This record gives sequence, C-alpha cells and structure tokens, in this order.
Amino acid sequence: MKRFGQVIGLRPEDAAEYIRLHADVWPGVLKKIEECNIRNYSIFRYGDLLFAYMEYHGDDFDADMAAMAADETTQKWWALCMPMQKPVEDRAEGEWWKTIEEVFHCD
Amino acid sequence: MKRFGQVIGLRPEDAAEYIRLHADVWPGVLKKIEECNIRNYSIFRYGDLLFAYMEYHGDDFDADMAAMAADETTQKWWALCMPMQKPVEDRAEGEWWKTIEEVFHCD
Repeated sequence: MKRFGQVIGLRPEDAAEYIRLHADVWPGVLKKIEECNIRNYSIFRYGDLLFAYMEYHGDDFDADMAAMAADETTQKWWALCMPMQKPVEDRAEGEWWKTIEEVFHCD
Repeated sequence: MKRFGQVIGLRPEDAAEYIRLHADVWPGVLKKIEECNIRNYSIFRYGDLLFAYMEYHGDDFDADMAAMAADETTQKWWALCMPMQKPVEDRAEGEWWKTIEEVFHCD
C-alpha cells in the first residue's frame, strides 16, 4: 500500500459549493475511486487550501489513474470541481493536486 | 474511530532538522502514541506548513491526550519539536496543531 498526501487551492468564492458537493459525492464517482484501488480517502480544508490523504492498494497507479480519467461520470464530476480548485504553483509537471512529502508515519 | 486532520507551521530554518528527527522518532514516543490509541498517523510537509492525518481508536480522546502530555519522554520530544513549529494564528483556544475540517471521506 502507498499513502499519498496532496494539496490544492480552493477558490474562496466556491468554497461553500465545493463543500456541499463533497458532502454527497455521486455514487458513480465513489464506485470508480474504489475500482481504481483508492481506499481511506479524505479531504480536509484549511482556509483556501485543501489537503487530501489517501491509500493506494493497487499495483499500477498510473494505469488506475488513467482509468479514472477515462470514466465518463468522473469526467462530469471533475468538470464541476476543477473550476473551484486552484492548483498550487509549485506542483510537478502534469499534476493537478500537488503530491506532498511524507515526513513521518506510524501505524 | 475518529479521523483528524491538523495543520501547523514549520519554521523554514528548522525544516531540515525537523525532517531528520521525524525520520527516526524515539521508540518511547511511538510507544506512547500507540498507548494513547492513535493509529495510522502521518505527517506531510507542504513548504512551511505541516499537515497531519491520524485515526483515534479510543473512547476518551481528552484523557488519552492528557496521558500523552504527562509522559516524560513525550515531553522531551515536544521540547525539541515545538520550537521548530509555528502554530497557525486561527487555531482554536488551547490548540497547538489546528484541527481542520473534513469535507470528504470514503472508505
């Protein structure tokens, strides 16, 4: 299993709607997350910043992420959510959410 | 089980030492974390900000946190770490790390 921490900006004017949407995520989106081997996935908000924590249990992360990106329901969901997000400037090339460094873990 | 997300600032001049310490946390500190019913505890770094994710499996969080604070080894550890941290200004009264809002979770 591989743990991921990620950050992305949240546009303040869209925060209320983003939170409302995420309180009741579409079943098809949740199903695809599960099919793509993501487990124990949480998003937290700190002001204009979102922090995500997730655990990946598959053996081909890039392939699973490609499958997620190819899913029609997920694409519609992202079309709603992405304009509300503001990726951080120092993310790696090709990233939307920036992957951040794990400095400590205990089970 | 209750999940927590937390943030705190990291003083840039201390970042390297903080990361070094957390790559090899003292066994007594880890033991106390476990005794206090914290599991699956990770800290991530995003620039001058630390993001923590943890799961609490006990039934009296305040009592467990008081037990942690009373532990001599933990106190010595905190005496090293706390000067490297810079709590965020909008934390709640009595907080060191600020607890942040969970806006999404799926198992």
